[in-house]
Amino acid sequence: MKGKKVEGGYLVVLERGEEVVKSLTDFVKENNIEGGEIYGIGGVKDVVLGFFDTTKKEYLKRRFKGNFELVSLVGNVSLLEGKPFLHLHSAVSGSDFALFGGHLFEATISVTGEFYFRIQPKVVRKFDSDIGLNLIKL
Amino acid sequence: MKGKKVEGGYLVVLERGEEVVKSLTDFVKENNIEGGEIYGIGGVKDVVLGFFDTTKKEYLKRRFKGNFELVSLVGNVSLLEGKPFLHLHSAVSGSDFALFGGHLFEATISVTGEFYFRIQPKVVRKFDSDIGLNLIKL
Amino acid sequence: MKGKKVEGGYLVVLERGEEVVKSLTDFVKENNIEGGEIYGIGGVKDVVLGFFDTTKKEYLKRRFKGNFELVSLVGNVSLLEGKPFLHLHSAVSGSDFALFGGHLFEATISVTGEFYFRIQPKVVRKFDSDIGLNLIKL
Repeated sequence: MKGKKVEGGYLVVLERGEEVVKSLTDFVKENNIEGGEIYGIGGVKDVVLGFFDTTKKEYLKRRFKGNFELVSLVGNVSLLEGKPFLHLHSAVSGSDFALFGGHLFEATISVTGEFYFRIQPKVVRKFDSDIGLNLIKL
Repeated sequence: MKGKKVEGGYLVVLERGEEVVKSLTDFVKENNIEGGEIYGIGGVKDVVLGFFDTTKKEYLKRRFKGNFELVSLVGNVSLLEGKPFLHLHSAVSGSDFALFGGHLFEATISVTGEFYFRIQPKVVRKFDSDIGLNLIKL
Repeated sequence: MKGKKVEGGYLVVLERGEEVVKSLTDFVKENNIEGGEIYGIGGVKDVVLGFFDTTKKEYLKRRFKGNFELVSLVGNVSLLEGKPFLHLHSAVSGSDFALFGGHLFEATISVTGEFYFRIQPKVVRKFDSDIGLNLIKL
């Protein structure tokens, strides 16, 4: 993982073998980012996506093996119980170019990961028992 | 709908039951935003997507029932006949993780909606009879 | 192609018949952009997408005929051998709303293209023989 300070945020580049969610979470912790946006693209493998079941109030997860283009990663940074938390959604495609996506739980870099963080003021996320998820509280 | 001023724009969080396009349009009107970008993610239901038929010069619309992850919302703000107008495209996925998408006409929040607006100088959109749509005029 | 200076970057609008990758690359060259982000939406046709085969170390390419909503374009600008280079990933959907996507090699505007560039400090990309691609070197 390499990062570089840019206008209003950071450029973060991940290398083959690095896990995306853990690496980016480590980055926001190391840089004390308490709120922000993140956008990026890359090439990944072994992707775990989630779909939130609003009735069961839990994520249905599925692991996708193989290599994929990371066509979009869109997300944000907040604090959950005082610790930086990344909420990431991603779209990925394989060799048939069909896209699938959802909440990003895990993905390992197979080619590269190129992400821009934009730092924003602190955002706090708290558990919402009605929804069953940690939601932003403004 | 809750909004918070951030660096160069706003963080807007929508709650269960709020309609995305109407709520975000209300927000830009209330805050006199005349140009800008918007990016975000969330969990939605009852999504109406559009595909523009360039021959008929009209949108083919389809309503998708059920719950979906809002994997990406990318769009912009402009003025159409003096009123704030949002041009939004979205990708959504259900429990099979397959993504579909298009022009976003409507979506109701089922879980949450987390969006960052970036304010930009005024942009004007006008009807283009060749194309059959309201296009940005620079 | 029309461009307008905005806060921290440019708004670029492409018109029917313009090829996206060439036009945006021309824009970054003309404006001496050496690093940056780009995000946008539009309506396109004749799309060429790529999937990187990590074993063969080459892109599998496929051309998609017909008209599509450009649901997301996410990418960045860097310098490759001293010349501006755009790394773009896109998701597109046709009249059945199913999304496909990958590395964007080519797409022709059928309706419009609305893109925001955010200028960032210079980023350099170099060939990485292990991966078989030009990667950002921080």
